[in-house]
Amino acid sequence: MNFASDNWSGAHPLISQRLLEISSGFSAPYGTSEFDHKIEQRFNDLFEREVAVYFVSTGTAANSLALAAVNRPGGVSFCHREAHMLEDECGAPEFFTHGARLAPVDGENGKIDPQHLNDEIERFPPGFVHAGQPMAISITQATEIGTLYQPSEINAISHIAKKHHLPLHMDGARFANAVAALNQSPAEITWKKGVDIISFGATKNGCWCAEALIFMNPNMSKDLPFIRKRAAQLLSKSRFIAAQFDAYLQDNLWLDMAEHSNKMAMNLQNSISNSKNARLAWRTETNEVFCILDKKYAETLQKKGATFYTWNLPRSKLGLLCPNETLIRLVTSFATEPNEIAKFIDLLS
Amino acid sequence: MNFASDNWSGAHPLISQRLLEISSGFSAPYGTSEFDHKIEQRFNDLFEREVAVYFVSTGTAANSLALAAVNRPGGVSFCHREAHMLEDECGAPEFFTHGARLAPVDGENGKIDPQHLNDEIERFPPGFVHAGQPMAISITQATEIGTLYQPSEINAISHIAKKHHLPLHMDGARFANAVAALNQSPAEITWKKGVDIISFGATKNGCWCAEALIFMNPNMSKDLPFIRKRAAQLLSKSRFIAAQFDAYLQDNLWLDMAEHSNKMAMNLQNSISNSKNARLAWRTETNEVFCILDKKYAETLQKKGATFYTWNLPRSKLGLLCPNETLIRLVTSFATEPNEIAKFIDLLS
Amino acid sequence: MNFASDNWSGAHPLISQRLLEISSGFSAPYGTSEFDHKIEQRFNDLFEREVAVYFVSTGTAANSLALAAVNRPGGVSFCHREAHMLEDECGAPEFFTHGARLAPVDGENGKIDPQHLNDEIERFPPGFVHAGQPMAISITQATEIGTLYQPSEINAISHIAKKHHLPLHMDGARFANAVAALNQSPAEITWKKGVDIISFGATKNGCWCAEALIFMNPNMSKDLPFIRKRAAQLLSKSRFIAAQFDAYLQDNLWLDMAEHSNKMAMNLQNSISNSKNARLAWRTETNEVFCILDKKYAETLQKKGATFYTWNLPRSKLGLLCPNETLIRLVTSFATEPNEIAKFIDLLS
Amino acid sequence: MNFASDNWSGAHPLISQRLLEISSGFSAPYGTSEFDHKIEQRFNDLFEREVAVYFVSTGTAANSLALAAVNRPGGVSFCHREAHMLEDECGAPEFFTHGARLAPVDGENGKIDPQHLNDEIERFPPGFVHAGQPMAISITQATEIGTLYQPSEINAISHIAKKHHLPLHMDGARFANAVAALNQSPAEITWKKGVDIISFGATKNGCWCAEALIFMNPNMSKDLPFIRKRAAQLLSKSRFIAAQFDAYLQDNLWLDMAEHSNKMAMNLQNSISNSKNARLAWRTETNEVFCILDKKYAETLQKKGATFYTWNLPRSKLGLLCPNETLIRLVTSFATEPNEIAKFIDLLS
Repeated sequence: MNFASDNWSGAHPLISQRLLEISSGFSAPYGTSEFDHKIEQRFNDLFEREVAVYFVSTGTAANSLALAAVNRPGGVSFCHREAHMLEDECGAPEFFTHGARLAPVDGENGKIDPQHLNDEIERFPPGFVHAGQPMAISITQATEIGTLYQPSEINAISHIAKKHHLPLHMDGARFANAVAALNQSPAEITWKKGVDIISFGATKNGCWCAEALIFMNPNMSKDLPFIRKRAAQLLSKSRFIAAQFDAYLQDNLWLDMAEHSNKMAMNLQNSISNSKNARLAWRTETNEVFCILDKKYAETLQKKGATFYTWNLPRSKLGLLCPNETLIRLVTSFATEPNEIAKFIDLLS
Repeated sequence: MNFASDNWSGAHPLISQRLLEISSGFSAPYGTSEFDHKIEQRFNDLFEREVAVYFVSTGTAANSLALAAVNRPGGVSFCHREAHMLEDECGAPEFFTHGARLAPVDGENGKIDPQHLNDEIERFPPGFVHAGQPMAISITQATEIGTLYQPSEINAISHIAKKHHLPLHMDGARFANAVAALNQSPAEITWKKGVDIISFGATKNGCWCAEALIFMNPNMSKDLPFIRKRAAQLLSKSRFIAAQFDAYLQDNLWLDMAEHSNKMAMNLQNSISNSKNARLAWRTETNEVFCILDKKYAETLQKKGATFYTWNLPRSKLGLLCPNETLIRLVTSFATEPNEIAKFIDLLS
Repeated sequence: MNFASDNWSGAHPLISQRLLEISSGFSAPYGTSEFDHKIEQRFNDLFEREVAVYFVSTGTAANSLALAAVNRPGGVSFCHREAHMLEDECGAPEFFTHGARLAPVDGENGKIDPQHLNDEIERFPPGFVHAGQPMAISITQATEIGTLYQPSEINAISHIAKKHHLPLHMDGARFANAVAALNQSPAEITWKKGVDIISFGATKNGCWCAEALIFMNPNMSKDLPFIRKRAAQLLSKSRFIAAQFDAYLQDNLWLDMAEHSNKMAMNLQNSISNSKNARLAWRTETNEVFCILDKKYAETLQKKGATFYTWNLPRSKLGLLCPNETLIRLVTSFATEPNEIAKFIDLLS
Repeated sequence: MNFASDNWSGAHPLISQRLLEISSGFSAPYGTSEFDHKIEQRFNDLFEREVAVYFVSTGTAANSLALAAVNRPGGVSFCHREAHMLEDECGAPEFFTHGARLAPVDGENGKIDPQHLNDEIERFPPGFVHAGQPMAISITQATEIGTLYQPSEINAISHIAKKHHLPLHMDGARFANAVAALNQSPAEITWKKGVDIISFGATKNGCWCAEALIFMNPNMSKDLPFIRKRAAQLLSKSRFIAAQFDAYLQDNLWLDMAEHSNKMAMNLQNSISNSKNARLAWRTETNEVFCILDKKYAETLQKKGATFYTWNLPRSKLGLLCPNETLIRLVTSFATEPNEIAKFIDLLS
């Protein structure tokens, strides 16, 4: 019963097998082989337009280099107060941009509130050097707390981005879960709604190390080859990342895995909402279930073999807990088996 | 006949197999699993002392974070004029140290000349703020041009390092080739000769993405966990790097591969030294053979199926070429097959 | 009637005169002359201990280099949400620390709330690399909104700093106004209450360009000479900054100027509190008066010759304004003349 | 007899007087006053075109921000091996550009050799990410060793700059001395010969703190206001820098001072060339005389009251000294009096 995180899972057998197949023979390094290019081009089909694709080794690298690509002196990027960039990357986005700031924006359910966003941006009058200058907006899809931006919500944010001439970045560490849950095409929920740059994560969803930084408009990334190399993110035997994406995107494997993962979470959620021993903190829409239970009860579950983390309550949810209670996070993945869910539900009741 | 570079080769079957074995099941991420720790500790045995080990995804990351760990304001690091750090990393070492400079040092055969090194360091009087302050020395073993520092030569350099209180870093992108060629223990040619930090590369020698940054004195790396995370180099599913090292270090696989690679190069070298159509630029000691031949002849070889790069003549070797000649580099790897060598030698004669 | 800011004033005649006197003859540059050292040492007397003093050209430089001196990878510094560092320095503190973050802390009256401070720091569990690591606390004295930390309040904050092993920095852009208002010795309200580093500003209080970065414990600044030079803040003819401090500290000039400035503000405040046309937003304790009045009335005042800025309401004061009202800031300085105050008061009534 | 450096001199009385005049009254800060703008515009006349002007506090700041304005990821700037940027700024140019490298170029007499320059640039094939990418060329006028680029020599370098699409920067710490010696207009020896950016120094030539960073094409500096503020170089009471330039540029004061300084150096040079006790290392063309004499004799001169520095021999001049000899540098300034020269010449004979 491992619900600690989707990055505790390993690699899907089809991913591993593709890696194995690609491991013999010689191939041009540093992303210059035909194979690398072929896989990069598959993202054109996926996104229904010509995009620029850069493989990197971590999600933090993808997010940080996205900002580096649009960096400005005294730059300020706006993201949700609970964004991974702000909370979990040890200052990497600021480091790779030489100090460009991340400004937290509030919003319910892990999502930026458009009005707050606009207010925060307008704290920076154009040309007023003391405050700095806005440089980007970043949203996380699916969010850190398992919720989703609906396409119309992305639209509302990109409207503000355009008004202020700011690029819109999407941290898609769990992009597959979002696409699967929304049941819309990648194009439909990204550039058609105004998203400019995507951190397209595959590691959490069945790969072992495969992240792609994707620019909807290739011109926006003209310095990225140098930015990536200087960031120590140009992998020597890059074909091994390409191979993972090859298998990942083939025959819908990526969405099959995400759907499975989401479904497992929904099962968990349904059971918890019927449980007397726990209650949902909020409803998940993807593969992360957050629920509240008695602290001692949580420890009992852990002793009985359930692996999960207790979690900081988002600031917007303060007041949700009683003193004896704790918030826990349960994450499912492609590798979660139905019998683990069943076992956990048994424990809960 | 692929002699383009050792990073054109793929992964050794034993490495791939170990990756496959590790790919199922759940495991704590970000280097915190028992498995990760167990593999890290194998470096203690390898180096016959307690060391601190940090897995990263590229050799450039290893080198850059080595310098970041010993960074000083206005810092200057000394390396050979042809060092990879200086010539091939797009400024990453300077970027990760916020601008600490790399100072080129001359020396024959790709190796720092100790007297020149000392002269260059002494251009920076202690406390003289205008010039900056020395912060590290870096040597490459095996060197960029296939030669080796003899243990006594490392000793001579570490003597200067100690005199000036500077840490000594070794870029070991081809460390295995050096160990195999010198036939001495890793300890004997590193910390016992005064080396403090090693970029222990495995990617070029049969792994697909496995680099370890190793500190002989763990205290020297106390901030490295934060430095690595901020550098976007803390891999999520880190066990996959650990698994590669697991297989790499088992039953001497790493040295077997390096020995094979070196042997293939020696065979090439011997044939070239007997050839009328080419001559050695200098003698290799590891797995890179540099030879000089007629430009048109080089093109003919390429047309007939030999893959290799022409190479810039090191500044110290100016004058070696006639106008119609070119310098080429031939690199062997664990995957080089004897029949490729034989085929190439046939072509040459 | 110029109440725009204290940096709109020029230089006090005694400062100018001292500059003139020092302008002939030869003197060692870059802070190495006997005169420079003599003036640096006057801060020892002022602070009743041996301190390390570094002259720089702007307050932003002093603040940024203070943080650079205690910089850590993934570092996070805590300051009040309205701190100059955060709101008005265009990201310089992050730039000079290569991306170390500033975390806003709430608190009434422009002052960090100790409980909030502690809570924010504890969001960073020691050794947890994802979040980053606390590196410093910074308070502003006098605050951005004219209030003062009482010595006991500084004590409460330094208690938290010590608990978490963090250095405590004081942005003293208006330190003179604070000392004058508290009527306590500089030592008593700084290191005796746990302050480690001070940005000792003199520019706003009658100098034209004189800022000193002062370390209570000189060991804390051992790399500062290199940090300052690399930051382009080592002035060539440094004696001219020294000369300003020479006059500034002589015969209590600095406190006389600050007292005058504070007194002028008090006069303004008293009149406003009796006015029917304006009301105090909060009570000033130094030389900045914030008051609320009708927008149109504010414009009328400006048309009649009063120079001042309208101001953003601090987030903690939201709700203070009616729709037709605006917040204005009135700043006095050493150069403010009583008849300007009288004239403004006349206008108000 | 102070020949240590021109930055040992103080401020010219007319500069001081203008400072004094400007010191009373109120004025908008941060370069926004009418007075600031008026003085900035005087550079339009001086350079016979519309230029963008940014005042900063040090020459190192001017040089570093010049490069920051044209910064590129993995960027490499080319300057002479003895350039101040490389030898005397503690890594500031690399710091302010987040690690962009300075590549040393050789050349006789302190001047970049165009052929070497071109060769060095061509070591960076366009788009080849491993090497990095050229981003700027910088020349020093007058050079570090008192020589001058003739207009035709600047032309030859700007021709290479244009060929490679690189901006050409001029470090003009001693620009006045160059203009005075060449007897040509500032326009004629800068943008009319292809110079794009100038660090226009006035501090060494009779000001106390006045440096202007000037862009011949204002568009090239569109981010500079933010770059300067973030660099802590936007001075609060900026009018005091403006005032220095006001006096400096009025009635040719700047060139009068430089001519005097150059003339004093010529007198020194003529005497030395006739002396039996010293010989010129090379001929100066501005205000720095380099000569060679017996070490003990140099010490004797110092004991008798002459202040000067011994100097590192430029690498291109190796072999110039006998073992008992030393190289000394004698710098004159606006404040050098003829009787000091006479006294020194007396000592020499």
